[in-house]
Amino acid sequence: MKVKEIMDKEFIVVSPDQKVDEVSIKMEKKRKFTTPVVDDDEKLVGWITSLDVTRGLREHKKKVKDIMYSREEIVHVYENDTARLAVLEASKHKLVSIPVLNEEEVVVGVVRTFDIVKTLSQLYEIKVYKIFEAMEQELKGVSWDELMEASAIVTKRSTGERITAEEYEQRIRNSTFGEAIWATGGLEKFFVGFTAIGELVIARKVARARK
Amino acid sequence: MKVKEIMDKEFIVVSPDQKVDEVSIKMEKKRKFTTPVVDDDEKLVGWITSLDVTRGLREHKKKVKDIMYSREEIVHVYENDTARLAVLEASKHKLVSIPVLNEEEVVVGVVRTFDIVKTLSQLYEIKVYKIFEAMEQELKGVSWDELMEASAIVTKRSTGERITAEEYEQRIRNSTFGEAIWATGGLEKFFVGFTAIGELVIARKVARARK
Repeated sequence: MKVKEIMDKEFIVVSPDQKVDEVSIKMEKKRKFTTPVVDDDEKLVGWITSLDVTRGLREHKKKVKDIMYSREEIVHVYENDTARLAVLEASKHKLVSIPVLNEEEVVVGVVRTFDIVKTLSQLYEIKVYKIFEAMEQELKGVSWDELMEASAIVTKRSTGERITAEEYEQRIRNSTFGEAIWATGGLEKFFVGFTAIGELVIARKVARARK
Repeated sequence: MKVKEIMDKEFIVVSPDQKVDEVSIKMEKKRKFTTPVVDDDEKLVGWITSLDVTRGLREHKKKVKDIMYSREEIVHVYENDTARLAVLEASKHKLVSIPVLNEEEVVVGVVRTFDIVKTLSQLYEIKVYKIFEAMEQELKGVSWDELMEASAIVTKRSTGERITAEEYEQRIRNSTFGEAIWATGGLEKFFVGFTAIGELVIARKVARARK
């Protein structure tokens, strides 16, 4: 996934010579805590946050250029960078947003952390039964019921919990991948359980084929 | 995971009767775009953002209570809520932070989206070979080399790409779970590939045992 797929294209920009109070109104109206400062060619020349604006207003600074961060101080990414890079930068520098540039250094978007949260959380929100459906489809000759039965057996073996195949099915219909990872103790542990279930159904399938 | 495990405990609070310019300085110093407003018992009574402060300064409002959102307007979570709830709220309402309360409605933390990003991205950053290591450990009698060989075969079968076991190993040492999901086309597809590899090594193991 690339930065351009997660960036917000509905961003605002301001110019270095705009008045602080004017910019303040614009940011309030659009509910933006941050905004890129661009020159006449829409190229990035600075960055302001609403905290720079409060200081500017308090200290009676006139223009954006009197309160802005300079180009050199700004964390930025390019539209064709991996989304992963934006995620790592936001997390490392504790940013709420990052300006996105094209190859000509023109500002083409802003990556916002709540958009990153939305994108990242999608993986966690996938229902566990979707994974089992994928498994069932791949394992020709293994039925859904066999898969559920094997899952119940593996659960009992690893946790001691007595659970029926029906109860197991109910559980995976209601739980998300994120919850399952949390419940099993991490991604690797989740895969251990998944592997054990796979091994059981495949061993049974092979045994059946040999009969 | 619970909200209290991902919340920031180093938050600032302000009171309804504090002066706007005083609060402005505090927020700038601590680099906070938002802050809970609390009463004398530290209970949540309001919320301000730096955009309310810019408006307050511009319009010469005197006190926090003149610019704050009221208790009823604030999205909040409780420390014992699931972290998932905070993630969904941040994403749904496009928030940069959410106040966290205990059972007595006292503010005990603030969940910030960049902290959520950090937590959520950990899953994506797990190296793929860690998953294979978990698989190898679970599948008694299957060696690491067999697993890599089966993976190369499955890759060739599904994508047509000729890859050696050594190249496959190199690839999973360098790639993350997030990249692998992206490369295979989604979590379910990743599990399909994983299942196919599992089926191949298990079938070989069973065949060997029968000899």
